[in-house]
Parts: sequence; C-alpha cells; structure tokens
Amino acid sequence: MKILIRVSYLGTNYAGFQVQKNAVTVQEKLQDAVESLYGVRYPLTGCSRTDSGVHAKDFCCTIEAGADCERIPFEKIPDALNVRLPKDISVFEAFLMPDDFHPRYSVHFKEYEYLIYNSRKRSPFYEGRAFQYPTELDEFKMDRAADMFRGTHDFSAFMSSGSGVSDTVRTVKYCRATRNGREVRVTVAADGFLYNMVRIIVGTLIEVSAGKIQEQDIPVIIESKERGRSGFTAPPEGLYLNKVVYR
Amino acid sequence: MKILIRVSYLGTNYAGFQVQKNAVTVQEKLQDAVESLYGVRYPLTGCSRTDSGVHAKDFCCTIEAGADCERIPFEKIPDALNVRLPKDISVFEAFLMPDDFHPRYSVHFKEYEYLIYNSRKRSPFYEGRAFQYPTELDEFKMDRAADMFRGTHDFSAFMSSGSGVSDTVRTVKYCRATRNGREVRVTVAADGFLYNMVRIIVGTLIEVSAGKIQEQDIPVIIESKERGRSGFTAPPEGLYLNKVVYR
Repeated sequence: MKILIRVSYLGTNYAGFQVQKNAVTVQEKLQDAVESLYGVRYPLTGCSRTDSGVHAKDFCCTIEAGADCERIPFEKIPDALNVRLPKDISVFEAFLMPDDFHPRYSVHFKEYEYLIYNSRKRSPFYEGRAFQYPTELDEFKMDRAADMFRGTHDFSAFMSSGSGVSDTVRTVKYCRATRNGREVRVTVAADGFLYNMVRIIVGTLIEVSAGKIQEQDIPVIIESKERGRSGFTAPPEGLYLNKVVYR
Repeated sequence: MKILIRVSYLGTNYAGFQVQKNAVTVQEKLQDAVESLYGVRYPLTGCSRTDSGVHAKDFCCTIEAGADCERIPFEKIPDALNVRLPKDISVFEAFLMPDDFHPRYSVHFKEYEYLIYNSRKRSPFYEGRAFQYPTELDEFKMDRAADMFRGTHDFSAFMSSGSGVSDTVRTVKYCRATRNGREVRVTVAADGFLYNMVRIIVGTLIEVSAGKIQEQDIPVIIESKERGRSGFTAPPEGLYLNKVVYR
C-alpha cells in the first residue's frame, strides 16, 4: 500500500530531506515517527531532495506500508505522526495512492519560492527564513528578467556541479519577482530543477537589479551554458518548496 | 546622555524583557552588548515589561550613557550592538533624546498585535510565533465585539492578578480583528495596558466567536470588573508589541 503524506518543515535544523550518515535529516525524523506509529520501519520516498537549511510548505512523500497499516484510518495519520515528530516538521494530510504512483517520477511540476528580506538591518523574525539583502532591489527589473527564464531550455548555466545529471533541459512554466513591503519573492515553477537552479536564478536576478548583469543578457547566458556567466548562488535559508503538482 | 534604541526581538527563548534572577532576559542581553561596546555597564530602561515568550517588533529603550559615548556615531550603534547580540534580538535605530524623556512615562500609546493561526493542523512556520486555534473563527463577530473595548474604562475584568496596580482605568484607542487567509489578527492600541490585558481580550473575543460569550455582553463584562466573567488568557506566543508612540 502506498500512503501519500503531505508535510511542511522548517529546514533550519536539518541537513536537507534525504537520509545521510552523520547528519540529522527530515526523512530520518519521518521514518522514526512512522516506525513508532506502525511498529515497522516502512520505506519512505520523497518528491525531491532539498538542501540543508531549505524549507518546504508542501513536501510530498510516500510510505510503502504493509496491508496491516489499514488499522489506522488515513484521516488520523497526520495527528498520530505529529505527536511523534519535532515541532519543526508537521504532516497535514495523508491518503492512499495507486501502486504505480511515484512521488518523484509522477511530478507534473513543482513550485519554489525564494524569500528575500530587503532591508539594511537584520530582523529576528526573518532569521533563517529569508535571505537578508541590504541594497534596495528593483523588483520590476528583476521581474522582466525573471520572465526570460520561461520555456524549455538547457539550464546548464544555472546548475552547480556535483549532481551528475546528464539531461540538463528543463521547462520553466513561470518565473516571477514580486514585492510586498520589504519582502521580495521570486516564484519559479518547472517540470524539474537542476542542482541549485532556483538559488542561481535568484542570485542572477539580484545581479540584474544591481546592474552587474543586463536583463536582456539572460537569454545569452542561458544559451552559453556556462556557469561562470550566471550570478551567485543565493543562500539556502530563503528557499521554500511551495507545492508539488502531480499528473 | 540618553540614547533611545529601537529593538525587535523574538521572545521565544527569553523570560520577557526585564532582568530577573535565574532567567535569561532581553534586557540582560542588551546590557551585555552595551557593556561590550562602551566598556561600561550603563543602565538600560525599557518601554514596558513583556512576558515570557512575547515578541516585539518595535520595542523602545534608553541607554543612560556617559558623555564619552559620543565617540561612537549614533548611526553606527545598531550594527555595533547587533554583532554583540544573539540573532533573535536586533537593534534597528538609535538616536539621542532629551534628558527628560522616559521610555515608559513619555508613552502616548502602544499598539499590540495578537496573531492566531486558525488551522486544525499545526505548522512549523507558526510554531512559537502564533496561537494555533483549530476551530474556524468568525472574524466579523470578533471585530464587532473588539470595537466595544474602545474608550476609557476600568479594565479590571481584563487583568490577571499579581501586578499590584491600583489605577485600572485605561483608554483603548482602537481594537480590531481581521483575517488574512488562516491568520486572524487582533490589534489593540491603548495609553497603557493592565497585566495580561491583551491576552484576556483575545481569549474573550475567541469565546465570542465560539458563542460562549455574547458580543453585546462585552460592555456588561467591562462594567462588572470581574475577571471571572471575561474569557481565557490566550497564550504568550501570539503576542507582539507592534509599536510605541511617544508624546
């Protein structure tokens, strides 16, 4: 039986989602809770790996559970897991999925949001939850540049090395920059993301605002496939996996 | 010389503002930073005591400094203190005030905001920063009731015991309840607040929404001066000192 659970978590205290040695991860905490609930350490598969310090508002993962798991009604699973989870991880929905569903391969698109706290002074309320950037950003310029990422492109220029993927073509559905007071948000949806892709897009948009990169050069940078031509990698604390849409 | 500093802090890890024995407070952290900066432990006076777990977006306090403090330009004080402060406390402005200014006695009014996360499921993003209340709130009913707190009244029915104040008359400038998605906010401004006054007002408004207290009974409850007739004391984590306005 495949149970899909929808989870939100604050990534600050975790070395990302995926289990790894010598580091505390969200997956490990979820597997501990699942084991404590069912008495069996059922396998758990996530919709993506998130990096250390990255947050998720609607992360999807499946529990590959045995038939006996039916003794707990699905609507009771979130509360039953939450009492077994630390307060920075929360399950808000659980339901049964067909056996051929896969939380990663069945993804239609994912939406990420990057939050910039655009203020000269740091704020305790944004600490670990946004990237504090002191210079006034031009969100209109950033938004015009952001829109140029839309479409199907080889995004090699927006990928950190070390992931080992061979197919670097992705389709960006939309990429927008908006402002609400001191909060500047970059929202990107795509059928898939390369390693650090959102964070490099955000770094590039910030450099567009600063005049270091010209907005009309975005297509040229994409075309070049050279990481050296795009902007810096914005830090993880501003990044949120917003939603996952399945086919 | 009196230097006014404007501070924001996340109250989660502190036993309130005011220094006390055997507990870590915001005032103590600020005094440590001031001492580290000037080499002297100058007295520090706050605009209010906040309770354990209560937050502040714009808390004002004065440093009663010696004349030698002029060697550090006022505009450099925030950054100089921030590098000496934990990340959940941040100074965002500093300037010189006349000697007769007092951060508490010179207050014209203060505004508090109370944040309710109105959701059946807990969220890691609101943990320690809002009161999670599971039942759907009627913010229109709450707002109509909130408006009845406006004016000059004896607020004894909205005061926890133990503060020892004798004058329990306060003037509420405004009191409103609003909703933005799952966030319900109660905003109250007054010339002064009794012990737990905002938290009891919020608890009362929640009971009005739940139908346990009738909205038209608010004036009767105020009139009664009986704590037993008002609602429960909402927990500290939803409370924010929003701003302090001086005469």
